[in-house]
Amino acid sequence: MIGRVNHIAIAVPDLERAARRYRDVLGARVSAVQELPEHGVRVVFVEAGNTKVELLEPLGDDSPITAFLARNPDGGMHHICYEVTDIVMAVRRLSEEGARVLGDGRPRIGAHGLPVVFLHPKDFDGTLIELEEVKPEFEAS
Amino acid sequence: MIGRVNHIAIAVPDLERAARRYRDVLGARVSAVQELPEHGVRVVFVEAGNTKVELLEPLGDDSPITAFLARNPDGGMHHICYEVTDIVMAVRRLSEEGARVLGDGRPRIGAHGLPVVFLHPKDFDGTLIELEEVKPEFEAS
Repeated sequence: MIGRVNHIAIAVPDLERAARRYRDVLGARVSAVQELPEHGVRVVFVEAGNTKVELLEPLGDDSPITAFLARNPDGGMHHICYEVTDIVMAVRRLSEEGARVLGDGRPRIGAHGLPVVFLHPKDFDGTLIELEEVKPEFEAS
Repeated sequence: MIGRVNHIAIAVPDLERAARRYRDVLGARVSAVQELPEHGVRVVFVEAGNTKVELLEPLGDDSPITAFLARNPDGGMHHICYEVTDIVMAVRRLSEEGARVLGDGRPRIGAHGLPVVFLHPKDFDGTLIELEEVKPEFEAS
Protein backbone atom coordinates (compact mmCIF):
# COMPACT_ATOMS: atom_id res chain seq x y z
CA MET A 1 0.00 0.00 0.00
CA ILE A 2 2.48 2.68 1.04
CA GLY A 3 4.81 3.80 -1.72
CA ARG A 4 7.58 6.39 -1.76
CA VAL A 5 8.47 8.61 1.16
CA ASN A 6 7.11 11.89 -0.20
CA HIS A 7 8.72 13.96 2.55
CA ILE A 8 9.96 14.04 6.10
CA ALA A 9 8.63 17.04 8.05
CA ILE A 10 10.70 18.74 10.74
CA ALA A 11 9.18 21.39 13.01
CA VAL A 12 11.62 24.23 13.66
CA PRO A 13 11.43 27.27 15.92
CA ASP A 14 13.22 29.60 13.47
CA LEU A 15 12.72 28.79 9.79
CA GLU A 16 15.32 31.17 8.36
CA ARG A 17 18.02 29.92 10.74
CA ALA A 18 17.13 26.27 10.02
CA ALA A 19 17.20 26.87 6.24
CA ARG A 20 20.63 28.55 6.51
CA ARG A 21 22.02 25.54 8.38
CA TYR A 22 20.77 23.06 5.80
CA ARG A 23 22.20 25.23 3.02
CA ASP A 24 25.48 26.40 4.54
CA VAL A 25 26.42 23.59 6.93
CA LEU A 26 24.92 20.56 5.18
CA GLY A 27 25.33 21.95 1.65
CA ALA A 28 21.77 21.11 0.63
CA ARG A 29 19.62 22.85 -1.97
CA VAL A 30 16.84 24.68 -0.13
CA SER A 31 13.82 26.51 -1.53
CA ALA A 32 12.66 30.01 -0.75
CA VAL A 33 10.29 30.36 2.20
CA GLN A 34 6.65 29.68 1.32
CA GLU A 35 3.76 30.80 3.47
CA LEU A 36 0.76 28.48 3.62
CA PRO A 37 -1.67 30.40 5.84
CA GLU A 38 -4.52 27.95 5.16
CA HIS A 39 -2.32 25.20 6.64
CA GLY A 40 -0.87 27.29 9.46
CA VAL A 41 2.78 26.92 8.43
CA ARG A 42 5.69 28.62 6.78
CA VAL A 43 7.79 26.03 4.94
CA VAL A 44 11.18 25.54 3.31
CA PHE A 45 11.82 22.49 1.11
CA VAL A 46 15.21 20.78 1.37
CA GLU A 47 16.09 18.62 -1.66
CA ALA A 48 17.69 15.30 -0.75
CA GLY A 49 17.95 13.58 -4.13
CA ASN A 50 15.45 10.79 -3.58
CA THR A 51 12.99 12.66 -1.35
CA LYS A 52 12.61 15.98 0.41
CA VAL A 53 12.67 17.36 3.91
CA GLU A 54 10.14 20.03 4.80
CA LEU A 55 11.12 22.48 7.51
CA LEU A 56 7.95 23.84 9.13
CA GLU A 57 7.47 26.90 11.31
CA PRO A 58 4.08 27.80 12.82
CA LEU A 59 2.10 30.54 11.09
CA GLY A 60 -0.89 32.14 12.76
CA ASP A 61 -2.73 31.32 15.97
CA ASP A 62 -4.05 27.92 14.99
CA SER A 63 -0.99 26.18 13.61
CA PRO A 64 -0.98 22.36 13.71
CA ILE A 65 2.64 22.39 14.93
CA THR A 66 2.34 24.89 17.82
CA ALA A 67 1.68 22.19 20.43
CA PHE A 68 4.57 20.07 19.13
CA LEU A 69 6.99 23.00 19.45
CA ALA A 70 5.70 23.76 22.94
CA ARG A 71 6.67 20.20 23.92
CA ASN A 72 9.89 20.29 21.84
CA PRO A 73 11.17 23.89 21.90
CA ASP A 74 14.32 22.99 19.92
CA GLY A 75 12.16 21.47 17.19
CA GLY A 76 12.22 17.89 16.00
CA MET A 77 11.00 15.35 13.47
CA HIS A 78 7.26 15.85 13.17
CA HIS A 79 5.94 13.35 10.61
CA ILE A 80 6.71 11.11 7.65
CA CYS A 81 4.56 11.31 4.54
CA TYR A 82 4.14 8.23 2.35
CA GLU A 83 2.52 8.25 -1.06
CA VAL A 84 -0.49 6.04 -1.80
CA THR A 85 -2.28 5.66 -5.12
CA ASP A 86 -5.80 5.33 -3.69
CA ILE A 87 -6.42 7.10 -0.40
CA VAL A 88 -10.03 5.92 -0.03
CA MET A 89 -8.90 2.30 -0.28
CA ALA A 90 -6.05 3.04 2.10
CA VAL A 91 -8.40 4.49 4.71
CA ARG A 92 -10.71 1.49 4.36
CA ARG A 93 -7.84 -0.94 4.94
CA LEU A 94 -6.58 1.05 7.94
CA SER A 95 -9.99 1.04 9.50
CA GLU A 96 -10.43 -2.70 8.89
CA GLU A 97 -7.09 -3.27 10.64
CA GLY A 98 -8.10 -1.07 13.58
CA ALA A 99 -5.70 1.83 12.88
CA ARG A 100 -7.08 5.28 13.60
CA VAL A 101 -7.22 8.13 11.10
CA LEU A 102 -7.08 11.55 12.78
CA GLY A 103 -9.95 14.05 12.52
CA ASP A 104 -13.21 12.84 11.01
CA GLY A 105 -11.38 10.06 9.18
CA ARG A 106 -12.00 11.57 5.75
CA PRO A 107 -9.22 12.75 3.42
CA ARG A 108 -8.78 16.51 3.22
CA ILE A 109 -6.69 18.59 0.84
CA GLY A 110 -3.14 18.89 2.18
CA ALA A 111 -0.39 21.43 1.73
CA HIS A 112 0.51 20.11 -1.75
CA GLY A 113 -3.06 20.38 -3.02
CA LEU A 114 -3.58 16.61 -2.87
CA PRO A 115 -5.83 14.46 -0.64
CA VAL A 116 -4.16 13.49 2.66
CA VAL A 117 -4.92 11.77 5.95
CA PHE A 118 -2.91 11.58 9.16
CA LEU A 119 -2.71 8.37 11.22
CA HIS A 120 -2.73 8.21 15.00
CA PRO A 121 0.88 8.08 16.33
CA LYS A 122 -0.19 5.65 19.07
CA ASP A 123 -0.91 3.05 16.38
CA PHE A 124 2.53 3.44 14.77
CA ASP A 125 5.15 3.51 17.52
CA GLY A 126 4.90 7.20 18.34
CA THR A 127 5.33 8.21 14.70
CA LEU A 128 2.88 10.58 13.03
CA ILE A 129 2.28 9.22 9.51
CA GLU A 130 0.73 11.21 6.68
CA LEU A 131 -0.60 9.45 3.59
CA GLU A 132 -0.87 11.52 0.42
CA GLU A 133 -2.68 10.39 -2.70
CA VAL A 134 -0.38 10.70 -5.69
CA LYS A 135 -1.60 9.49 -9.05
CA PRO A 136 0.89 7.22 -10.83
CA GLU A 137 2.76 9.10 -13.56
CA PHE A 138 1.92 6.44 -16.14
CA GLU A 139 -1.32 4.55 -15.92
CA ALA A 140 -2.23 1.51 -17.93
CA SER A 141 -4.60 2.56 -20.66
CA MET B 1 27.15 17.94 0.51
CA ILE B 2 24.28 15.77 1.75
CA GLY B 3 22.86 13.43 -0.86
CA ARG B 4 20.04 10.89 -0.68
CA VAL B 5 18.14 10.04 2.46
CA ASN B 6 19.62 6.59 3.11
CA HIS B 7 17.10 5.75 5.82
CA ILE B 8 14.81 7.09 8.50
CA ALA B 9 15.24 5.31 11.83
CA ILE B 10 12.32 4.74 14.19
CA ALA B 11 12.86 3.40 17.70
CA VAL B 12 10.13 0.94 18.71
CA PRO B 13 9.39 -0.86 21.97
CA ASP B 14 8.30 -4.13 20.28
CA LEU B 15 9.98 -4.90 16.96
CA GLU B 16 7.80 -7.84 15.92
CA ARG B 17 4.60 -5.90 16.59
CA ALA B 18 5.90 -2.85 14.71
CA ALA B 19 6.98 -4.98 11.73
CA ARG B 20 3.54 -6.63 11.57
CA ARG B 21 1.83 -3.23 11.49
CA TYR B 22 4.00 -1.98 8.63
CA ARG B 23 3.37 -5.21 6.73
CA ASP B 24 -0.30 -5.88 7.49
CA VAL B 25 -1.74 -2.38 8.05
CA LEU B 26 0.45 -0.27 5.76
CA GLY B 27 1.07 -3.06 3.24
CA ALA B 28 4.81 -2.46 3.10
CA ARG B 29 7.53 -4.97 2.30
CA VAL B 30 9.47 -5.64 5.50
CA SER B 31 12.65 -7.67 6.01
CA ALA B 32 13.26 -10.44 8.50
CA VAL B 33 14.56 -9.33 11.91
CA GLN B 34 18.32 -8.81 12.02
CA GLU B 35 20.30 -8.71 15.24
CA LEU B 36 23.25 -6.36 15.33
CA PRO B 37 24.73 -6.99 18.79
CA GLU B 38 27.81 -4.85 18.09
CA HIS B 39 25.45 -1.90 17.49
CA GLY B 40 23.05 -2.71 20.32
CA VAL B 41 19.96 -3.06 18.13
CA ARG B 42 17.59 -5.51 16.51
CA VAL B 43 16.37 -4.08 13.21
CA VAL B 44 13.69 -4.57 10.56
CA PHE B 45 13.99 -2.78 7.21
CA VAL B 46 10.84 -1.37 5.65
CA GLU B 47 11.09 -0.77 1.88
CA ALA B 48 9.53 2.51 0.77
CA GLY B 49 10.45 2.62 -2.91
CA ASN B 50 12.84 5.55 -2.84
CA THR B 51 14.36 4.99 0.63
CA LYS B 52 13.94 2.75 3.62
CA VAL B 53 12.69 2.97 7.17
CA GLU B 54 14.61 1.12 9.83
CA LEU B 55 12.65 -0.02 12.86
CA LEU B 56 15.05 -0.35 15.81
CA GLU B 57 14.60 -2.17 19.11
CA PRO B 58 17.27 -2.10 21.83
CA LEU B 59 19.51 -5.17 22.13
CA GLY B 60 21.70 -5.72 25.16
CA ASP B 61 22.52 -3.50 28.13
CA ASP B 62 24.29 -0.75 26.28
CA SER B 63 21.95 0.05 23.40
CA PRO B 64 22.18 3.54 21.87
CA ILE B 65 18.38 3.77 21.82
CA THR B 66 17.58 2.73 25.42
CA ALA B 67 17.57 6.31 26.71
CA PHE B 68 15.39 7.50 23.82
CA LEU B 69 12.79 4.82 24.56
CA ALA B 70 12.87 5.67 28.26
CA ARG B 71 11.91 9.25 27.27
CA ASN B 72 9.49 8.05 24.55
CA PRO B 73 7.98 4.74 25.73
CA ASP B 74 5.71 4.48 22.66
CA GLY B 75 8.72 4.88 20.36
CA GLY B 76 9.30 7.63 17.84
CA MET B 77 11.41 8.95 15.00
CA HIS B 78 15.02 8.61 16.12
CA HIS B 79 17.25 9.90 13.31
CA ILE B 80 17.59 10.63 9.60
CA CYS B 81 20.59 9.29 7.70
CA TYR B 82 21.89 11.20 4.68
CA GLU B 83 24.50 9.85 2.30
CA VAL B 84 27.74 11.75 1.69
CA THR B 85 30.50 10.82 -0.73
CA ASP B 86 33.41 11.98 1.44
CA ILE B 87 32.85 11.80 5.16
CA VAL B 88 36.22 13.28 6.12
CA MET B 89 35.50 16.37 4.04
CA ALA B 90 31.98 16.50 5.48
CA VAL B 91 33.31 16.46 9.05
CA ARG B 92 35.81 19.20 8.20
CA ARG B 93 33.08 21.43 6.79
CA LEU B 94 30.79 20.78 9.78
CA SER B 95 33.55 21.70 12.17
CA GLU B 96 34.43 24.87 10.20
CA GLU B 97 30.76 25.86 10.42
CA GLY B 98 30.65 25.19 14.17
CA ALA B 99 28.39 22.12 14.05
CA ARG B 100 29.21 19.38 16.53
CA VAL B 101 29.92 15.75 15.64
CA LEU B 102 29.02 13.37 18.47
CA GLY B 103 31.63 11.21 20.21
CA ASP B 104 35.30 11.87 19.43
CA GLY B 105 34.34 13.49 16.14
CA ARG B 106 35.88 10.75 14.03
CA PRO B 107 33.90 8.48 11.70
CA ARG B 108 33.27 4.97 12.95
CA ILE B 109 31.89 1.94 11.14
CA GLY B 110 28.09 1.97 11.30
CA ALA B 111 25.43 -0.70 11.14
CA HIS B 112 25.76 -1.03 7.33
CA GLY B 113 29.54 -1.57 7.48
CA LEU B 114 30.24 1.96 6.19
CA PRO B 115 31.81 5.00 7.90
CA VAL B 116 29.29 7.14 9.77
CA VAL B 117 29.11 10.15 12.07
CA PHE B 118 26.20 11.52 14.08
CA LEU B 119 25.60 15.28 14.44
CA HIS B 120 24.44 17.01 17.58
CA PRO B 121 20.62 17.43 17.54
CA LYS B 122 20.97 20.85 19.18
CA ASP B 123 22.67 22.12 16.01
CA PHE B 124 19.86 20.87 13.73
CA ASP B 125 16.51 21.78 15.31
CA GLY B 126 16.27 18.78 17.63
CA THR B 127 16.91 16.31 14.80
CA LEU B 128 19.59 13.64 15.16
CA ILE B 129 21.36 13.42 11.79
CA GLU B 130 23.57 10.55 10.68
CA LEU B 131 25.92 10.94 7.72
CA GLU B 132 27.01 7.75 5.99
CA GLU B 133 29.79 7.59 3.42
CA VAL B 134 28.51 5.87 0.30
CA LYS B 135 30.78 5.64 -2.71
CA PRO B 136 29.12 6.76 -5.94
CA GLU B 137 28.09 3.78 -8.06
CA PHE B 138 29.88 5.16 -11.10
CA GLU B 139 32.99 7.23 -10.70
CA ALA B 140 34.69 9.22 -13.44
CA SER B 141 37.72 7.24 -14.57
